[in-house]
Amino acid sequence: MMEFELEKAIVVLQTTPAILQAWLRHLPHEWVTATDDEDTWSAFDIVGHLIHGEKTDWIPRAEIILSDRETKKFEPFDRFAMLKESQGRTMQELLDTFMHLRHESINHLRALRLSESDYDRTGDHPDLGEVTLRQLLATWVAHDLNHLGQIAEVMARQYKVEVGPWKEFLDILG
Amino acid sequence: MMEFELEKAIVVLQTTPAILQAWLRHLPHEWVTATDDEDTWSAFDIVGHLIHGEKTDWIPRAEIILSDRETKKFEPFDRFAMLKESQGRTMQELLDTFMHLRHESINHLRALRLSESDYDRTGDHPDLGEVTLRQLLATWVAHDLNHLGQIAEVMARQYKVEVGPWKEFLDILG
Repeated sequence: MMEFELEKAIVVLQTTPAILQAWLRHLPHEWVTATDDEDTWSAFDIVGHLIHGEKTDWIPRAEIILSDRETKKFEPFDRFAMLKESQGRTMQELLDTFMHLRHESINHLRALRLSESDYDRTGDHPDLGEVTLRQLLATWVAHDLNHLGQIAEVMARQYKVEVGPWKEFLDILG
Repeated sequence: MMEFELEKAIVVLQTTPAILQAWLRHLPHEWVTATDDEDTWSAFDIVGHLIHGEKTDWIPRAEIILSDRETKKFEPFDRFAMLKESQGRTMQELLDTFMHLRHESINHLRALRLSESDYDRTGDHPDLGEVTLRQLLATWVAHDLNHLGQIAEVMARQYKVEVGPWKEFLDILG
Protein backbone atom coordinates (compact mmCIF):
# COMPACT_ATOMS: atom_id res chain seq x y z
CA MET A 1 0.00 0.00 0.00
CA MET A 2 1.05 3.59 -0.60
CA GLU A 3 1.20 6.47 1.82
CA PHE A 4 -0.70 9.58 0.83
CA GLU A 5 1.49 12.16 -0.89
CA LEU A 6 -0.05 15.24 -2.49
CA GLU A 7 1.80 15.13 -5.82
CA LYS A 8 1.12 11.41 -6.32
CA ALA A 9 -2.55 11.99 -5.57
CA ILE A 10 -2.75 14.97 -7.95
CA VAL A 11 -1.34 12.95 -10.84
CA VAL A 12 -4.27 10.52 -10.53
CA LEU A 13 -6.85 13.28 -10.07
CA GLN A 14 -5.50 15.02 -13.18
CA THR A 15 -5.73 11.87 -15.25
CA THR A 16 -9.38 11.05 -14.59
CA PRO A 17 -10.92 13.58 -17.04
CA ALA A 18 -8.63 12.33 -19.83
CA ILE A 19 -9.54 8.70 -19.11
CA LEU A 20 -13.24 9.56 -19.22
CA GLN A 21 -12.84 11.51 -22.47
CA ALA A 22 -11.01 8.59 -24.11
CA TRP A 23 -13.57 6.12 -22.80
CA LEU A 24 -16.90 7.83 -23.28
CA ARG A 25 -16.65 10.68 -25.79
CA HIS A 26 -17.32 8.61 -28.90
CA LEU A 27 -19.18 5.71 -27.36
CA PRO A 28 -22.69 5.11 -28.78
CA HIS A 29 -25.61 6.28 -26.66
CA GLU A 30 -26.68 2.72 -25.88
CA TRP A 31 -23.40 1.95 -24.08
CA VAL A 32 -23.26 5.29 -22.27
CA THR A 33 -26.78 5.08 -20.87
CA ALA A 34 -26.86 1.35 -20.13
CA THR A 35 -27.59 0.36 -16.53
CA ASP A 36 -27.39 -3.00 -14.82
CA ASP A 37 -30.70 -2.80 -12.99
CA GLU A 38 -32.84 -0.01 -11.57
CA ASP A 39 -30.39 0.70 -8.75
CA THR A 40 -27.22 1.05 -10.79
CA TRP A 41 -25.88 4.11 -12.54
CA SER A 42 -24.99 4.44 -16.19
CA ALA A 43 -21.67 5.94 -17.33
CA PHE A 44 -23.65 9.13 -18.00
CA ASP A 45 -24.95 9.18 -14.41
CA ILE A 46 -21.45 8.57 -13.04
CA VAL A 47 -19.89 11.54 -14.87
CA GLY A 48 -22.74 13.70 -13.52
CA HIS A 49 -21.97 12.43 -10.03
CA LEU A 50 -18.27 13.31 -10.43
CA ILE A 51 -19.27 16.84 -11.54
CA HIS A 52 -21.43 17.26 -8.46
CA GLY A 53 -18.48 16.16 -6.29
CA GLU A 54 -16.24 18.86 -7.76
CA LYS A 55 -18.86 21.48 -6.98
CA THR A 56 -19.95 20.48 -3.50
CA ASP A 57 -17.67 17.85 -1.99
CA TRP A 58 -13.86 17.79 -2.21
CA ILE A 59 -12.59 21.38 -2.29
CA PRO A 60 -15.52 22.81 -0.28
CA ARG A 61 -14.87 20.24 2.46
CA ALA A 62 -11.10 20.88 2.40
CA GLU A 63 -11.90 24.56 2.91
CA ILE A 64 -14.14 23.82 5.88
CA ILE A 65 -11.33 21.77 7.45
CA LEU A 66 -8.81 24.57 6.90
CA SER A 67 -11.13 27.36 8.01
CA ASP A 68 -11.16 29.05 11.44
CA ARG A 69 -14.84 28.32 12.00
CA GLU A 70 -15.82 26.93 15.34
CA THR A 71 -17.88 24.10 13.91
CA LYS A 72 -16.45 22.24 10.93
CA LYS A 73 -19.48 20.22 10.03
CA PHE A 74 -19.66 19.21 6.34
CA GLU A 75 -22.84 19.64 4.34
CA PRO A 76 -24.22 16.18 3.56
CA PHE A 77 -23.26 15.16 0.01
CA ASP A 78 -26.28 14.41 -2.17
CA ARG A 79 -25.32 11.25 -4.05
CA PHE A 80 -28.30 11.57 -6.38
CA ALA A 81 -28.28 15.31 -7.18
CA MET A 82 -26.78 14.69 -10.62
CA LEU A 83 -29.76 12.66 -11.79
CA LYS A 84 -31.64 15.96 -12.02
CA GLU A 85 -28.71 18.25 -12.89
CA SER A 86 -27.60 16.17 -15.88
CA GLN A 87 -31.03 16.08 -17.50
CA GLY A 88 -31.04 17.31 -21.10
CA ARG A 89 -27.28 17.52 -21.31
CA THR A 90 -25.08 15.47 -23.64
CA MET A 91 -22.24 13.17 -22.60
CA GLN A 92 -19.80 15.53 -24.36
CA GLU A 93 -21.06 18.51 -22.35
CA LEU A 94 -20.70 16.61 -19.09
CA LEU A 95 -17.18 15.44 -19.99
CA ASP A 96 -16.09 18.98 -20.83
CA THR A 97 -17.68 20.38 -17.68
CA PHE A 98 -15.94 17.77 -15.54
CA MET A 99 -12.57 18.43 -17.23
CA HIS A 100 -12.92 22.15 -16.60
CA LEU A 101 -14.04 21.77 -12.97
CA ARG A 102 -11.34 19.23 -12.15
CA HIS A 103 -8.69 21.55 -13.61
CA GLU A 104 -9.97 24.34 -11.36
CA SER A 105 -10.12 22.03 -8.32
CA ILE A 106 -6.47 21.06 -8.77
CA ASN A 107 -5.41 24.70 -9.16
CA HIS A 108 -7.36 25.44 -6.01
CA LEU A 109 -5.76 22.52 -4.17
CA ARG A 110 -2.24 23.69 -5.09
CA ALA A 111 -3.08 27.26 -4.12
CA LEU A 112 -3.84 26.07 -0.58
CA ARG A 113 -0.05 25.47 -0.19
CA LEU A 114 -0.64 22.74 2.35
CA SER A 115 1.97 22.10 5.01
CA GLU A 116 2.55 18.73 6.69
CA SER A 117 0.53 19.71 9.77
CA ASP A 118 -2.46 20.73 7.65
CA TYR A 119 -3.07 17.10 6.64
CA ASP A 120 -3.93 16.21 10.23
CA ARG A 121 -6.51 18.98 10.60
CA THR A 122 -10.03 17.66 10.92
CA GLY A 123 -13.62 18.22 9.91
CA ASP A 124 -16.87 16.71 11.08
CA HIS A 125 -18.51 14.31 8.63
CA PRO A 126 -22.30 13.95 9.08
CA ASP A 127 -22.09 10.13 9.19
CA LEU A 128 -18.44 9.30 9.87
CA GLY A 129 -17.58 11.85 12.55
CA GLU A 130 -14.06 13.24 12.72
CA VAL A 131 -12.04 12.92 9.52
CA THR A 132 -8.69 14.40 8.55
CA LEU A 133 -7.73 16.40 5.48
CA ARG A 134 -5.35 13.54 4.53
CA GLN A 135 -8.29 11.11 4.58
CA LEU A 136 -10.45 13.48 2.54
CA LEU A 137 -7.81 13.86 -0.17
CA ALA A 138 -7.00 10.12 -0.28
CA THR A 139 -10.75 9.45 -0.57
CA TRP A 140 -11.00 11.86 -3.49
CA VAL A 141 -8.49 9.69 -5.40
CA ALA A 142 -10.05 6.37 -4.39
CA HIS A 143 -13.51 7.75 -5.23
CA ASP A 144 -12.41 8.56 -8.81
CA LEU A 145 -11.06 5.03 -9.20
CA ASN A 146 -14.17 3.55 -7.62
CA HIS A 147 -16.29 5.18 -10.30
CA LEU A 148 -13.95 4.24 -13.15
CA GLY A 149 -14.35 0.65 -11.94
CA GLN A 150 -18.11 1.16 -11.83
CA ILE A 151 -18.18 2.26 -15.48
CA ALA A 152 -16.26 -0.89 -16.45
CA GLU A 153 -18.71 -2.96 -14.43
CA VAL A 154 -21.96 -1.51 -15.76
CA MET A 155 -20.71 -1.86 -19.35
CA ALA A 156 -19.37 -5.41 -18.90
CA ARG A 157 -22.65 -6.54 -17.39
CA GLN A 158 -24.50 -5.74 -20.60
CA TYR A 159 -22.93 -8.95 -21.94
CA LYS A 160 -23.61 -11.10 -18.88
CA VAL A 161 -25.77 -13.43 -20.99
CA GLU A 162 -23.90 -13.10 -24.28
CA VAL A 163 -20.59 -14.39 -22.85
CA GLY A 164 -22.24 -17.74 -22.13
CA PRO A 165 -20.08 -20.15 -20.08
CA TRP A 166 -17.20 -17.64 -19.87
CA LYS A 167 -19.18 -15.81 -17.17
CA GLU A 168 -17.45 -17.82 -14.47
CA PHE A 169 -14.01 -16.50 -15.52
CA LEU A 170 -15.03 -12.83 -15.40
CA ASP A 171 -15.10 -11.51 -11.85
CA ILE A 172 -16.66 -8.24 -12.99
CA LEU A 173 -19.88 -10.02 -13.99
CA GLY A 174 -20.34 -10.82 -10.30
CA MET B 1 -28.74 -6.01 -21.05
CA MET B 2 -27.55 -5.67 -24.62
CA GLU B 3 -27.52 -8.22 -27.39
CA PHE B 4 -24.19 -8.81 -29.06
CA GLU B 5 -23.74 -6.79 -32.25
CA LEU B 6 -20.39 -6.70 -34.03
CA GLU B 7 -20.15 -2.93 -34.58
CA LYS B 8 -21.13 -2.12 -30.98
CA ALA B 9 -18.54 -4.59 -29.74
CA ILE B 10 -15.84 -3.17 -32.02
CA VAL B 11 -16.39 0.36 -30.73
CA VAL B 12 -15.51 -0.83 -27.22
CA LEU B 13 -12.55 -2.94 -28.37
CA GLN B 14 -11.21 0.06 -30.30
CA THR B 15 -11.48 2.34 -27.30
CA THR B 16 -9.50 0.21 -24.84
CA PRO B 17 -5.99 1.15 -26.07
CA ALA B 18 -6.86 4.87 -25.90
CA ILE B 19 -8.24 4.50 -22.36
CA LEU B 20 -5.06 2.72 -21.27
CA GLN B 21 -2.85 5.36 -22.90
CA ALA B 22 -4.74 8.17 -21.14
CA TRP B 23 -4.66 6.31 -17.84
CA LEU B 24 -1.16 4.86 -17.64
CA ARG B 25 1.20 6.62 -20.04
CA HIS B 26 2.29 9.38 -17.67
CA LEU B 27 1.54 7.73 -14.36
CA PRO B 28 4.53 7.45 -12.00
CA HIS B 29 6.19 4.03 -11.74
CA GLU B 30 4.93 3.52 -8.18
CA TRP B 31 1.27 3.63 -9.28
CA VAL B 32 1.82 1.50 -12.38
CA THR B 33 3.63 -1.30 -10.57
CA ALA B 34 1.58 -1.28 -7.36
CA THR B 35 -0.11 -4.57 -6.43
CA ASP B 36 -2.66 -5.31 -3.75
CA ASP B 37 -1.04 -8.48 -2.43
CA GLU B 38 1.14 -11.21 -3.92
CA ASP B 39 -1.70 -12.66 -5.95
CA THR B 40 -2.90 -9.48 -7.66
CA TRP B 41 -1.60 -7.93 -10.84
CA SER B 42 -0.30 -4.40 -11.27
CA ALA B 43 -1.49 -2.16 -14.13
CA PHE B 44 1.78 -3.10 -15.85
CA ASP B 45 1.00 -6.82 -15.54
CA ILE B 46 -2.54 -6.26 -16.85
CA VAL B 47 -1.40 -4.51 -20.04
CA GLY B 48 1.03 -7.40 -20.61
CA HIS B 49 -1.86 -9.84 -20.18
CA LEU B 50 -3.96 -7.93 -22.73
CA ILE B 51 -1.05 -8.09 -25.20
CA HIS B 52 -0.79 -11.83 -24.74
CA GLY B 53 -4.54 -12.14 -25.42
CA GLU B 54 -4.19 -10.32 -28.74
CA LYS B 55 -1.45 -12.70 -29.79
CA THR B 56 -2.85 -16.04 -28.66
CA ASP B 57 -6.49 -15.80 -27.64
CA TRP B 58 -9.19 -13.82 -29.44
CA ILE B 59 -8.41 -13.85 -33.17
CA PRO B 60 -6.59 -17.22 -33.12
CA ARG B 61 -9.63 -18.80 -31.44
CA ALA B 62 -12.06 -17.12 -33.84
CA GLU B 63 -10.02 -18.61 -36.67
CA ILE B 64 -10.19 -22.09 -35.15
CA ILE B 65 -13.98 -21.76 -34.90
CA LEU B 66 -14.26 -20.63 -38.53
CA SER B 67 -11.81 -23.20 -39.89
CA ASP B 68 -12.71 -26.45 -41.60
CA ARG B 69 -10.64 -28.53 -39.20
CA GLU B 70 -12.21 -31.64 -37.78
CA THR B 71 -11.29 -30.83 -34.20
CA LYS B 72 -11.73 -27.26 -33.07
CA LYS B 73 -9.99 -27.51 -29.72
CA PHE B 74 -8.51 -24.20 -28.49
CA GLU B 75 -4.99 -24.01 -27.14
CA PRO B 76 -5.18 -23.34 -23.39
CA PHE B 77 -4.58 -19.63 -22.70
CA ASP B 78 -1.63 -19.01 -20.38
CA ARG B 79 -2.87 -16.35 -17.97
CA PHE B 80 0.61 -15.76 -16.59
CA ALA B 81 2.73 -15.76 -19.77
CA MET B 82 3.04 -11.98 -19.71
CA LEU B 83 4.86 -11.95 -16.39
CA LYS B 84 7.89 -13.26 -18.30
CA GLU B 85 7.22 -11.57 -21.65
CA SER B 86 6.92 -8.06 -20.16
CA GLN B 87 10.20 -8.25 -18.27
CA GLY B 88 12.57 -5.38 -19.03
CA ARG B 89 9.99 -3.47 -21.08
CA THR B 90 8.57 -0.06 -20.20
CA MET B 91 4.90 0.79 -19.68
CA GLN B 92 5.08 3.01 -22.78
CA GLU B 93 6.40 0.13 -24.90
CA LEU B 94 3.63 -2.18 -23.69
CA LEU B 95 0.94 0.46 -24.35
CA ASP B 96 2.21 1.04 -27.89
CA THR B 97 2.47 -2.69 -28.56
CA PHE B 98 -1.08 -3.25 -27.33
CA MET B 99 -2.42 -0.35 -29.43
CA HIS B 100 -0.74 -1.75 -32.53
CA LEU B 101 -1.89 -5.35 -31.93
CA ARG B 102 -5.48 -4.33 -31.14
CA HIS B 103 -5.62 -2.26 -34.33
CA GLU B 104 -4.50 -5.32 -36.30
CA SER B 105 -6.96 -7.58 -34.46
CA ILE B 106 -9.88 -5.33 -35.40
CA ASN B 107 -8.76 -5.17 -39.03
CA HIS B 108 -8.54 -8.94 -38.97
CA LEU B 109 -11.99 -9.25 -37.38
CA ARG B 110 -13.57 -7.03 -40.05
CA ALA B 111 -11.78 -8.93 -42.82
CA LEU B 112 -13.54 -12.12 -41.68
CA ARG B 113 -16.77 -10.59 -43.05
CA LEU B 114 -18.87 -12.55 -40.61
CA SER B 115 -22.41 -13.52 -41.55
CA GLU B 116 -25.22 -14.09 -39.05
CA SER B 117 -24.81 -17.86 -39.16
CA ASP B 118 -21.08 -17.62 -38.39
CA TYR B 119 -21.82 -16.35 -34.87
CA ASP B 120 -23.37 -19.70 -33.97
CA ARG B 121 -20.38 -21.74 -35.11
CA THR B 122 -18.56 -23.41 -32.25
CA GLY B 123 -15.16 -24.30 -30.89
CA ASP B 124 -14.06 -26.54 -28.06
CA HIS B 125 -12.75 -24.74 -24.98
CA PRO B 126 -10.34 -26.83 -22.84
CA ASP B 127 -12.34 -26.10 -19.63
CA LEU B 128 -15.74 -24.85 -20.79
CA GLY B 129 -16.52 -27.25 -23.63
CA GLU B 130 -18.55 -26.02 -26.59
CA VAL B 131 -18.59 -22.24 -27.04
CA THR B 132 -19.89 -20.12 -29.91
CA LEU B 133 -18.15 -17.38 -31.86
CA ARG B 134 -20.75 -14.93 -30.49
CA GLN B 135 -19.75 -15.89 -26.93
CA LEU B 136 -16.05 -15.58 -27.75
CA LEU B 137 -16.48 -12.06 -29.18
CA ALA B 138 -18.75 -10.89 -26.33
CA THR B 139 -16.18 -12.26 -23.89
CA TRP B 140 -13.42 -10.30 -25.60
CA VAL B 141 -15.34 -7.07 -24.82
CA ALA B 142 -16.23 -8.06 -21.25
CA HIS B 143 -12.62 -9.19 -20.67
CA ASP B 144 -11.29 -5.73 -21.64
CA LEU B 145 -13.73 -4.11 -19.21
CA ASN B 146 -12.91 -6.65 -16.52
CA HIS B 147 -9.26 -5.62 -16.67
CA LEU B 148 -10.01 -1.88 -16.78
CA GLY B 149 -11.98 -2.45 -13.58
CA GLN B 150 -9.05 -4.38 -12.17
CA ILE B 151 -6.67 -1.46 -12.81
CA ALA B 152 -9.06 0.87 -10.95
CA GLU B 153 -9.22 -1.65 -8.12
CA VAL B 154 -5.52 -2.27 -7.66
CA MET B 155 -4.82 1.48 -7.69
CA ALA B 156 -7.68 2.38 -5.30
CA ARG B 157 -6.54 -0.26 -2.82
CA GLN B 158 -3.22 1.53 -2.36
CA TYR B 159 -5.19 4.02 -0.24
CA LYS B 160 -7.21 1.45 1.71
CA VAL B 161 -5.67 2.69 4.96
CA GLU B 162 -5.25 6.35 4.02
CA VAL B 163 -8.99 6.90 3.39
CA GLY B 164 -9.71 6.12 7.06
CA PRO B 165 -13.42 5.80 7.89
CA TRP B 166 -14.49 6.50 4.27
CA LYS B 167 -13.49 2.89 3.47
CA GLU B 168 -17.05 1.75 4.13
CA PHE B 169 -18.43 4.02 1.36
CA LEU B 170 -16.03 2.76 -1.31
CA ASP B 171 -17.11 -0.61 -2.69
CA ILE B 172 -13.89 -0.96 -4.66
CA LEU B 173 -11.86 -1.25 -1.45
CA GLY B 174 -13.67 -4.52 -0.83
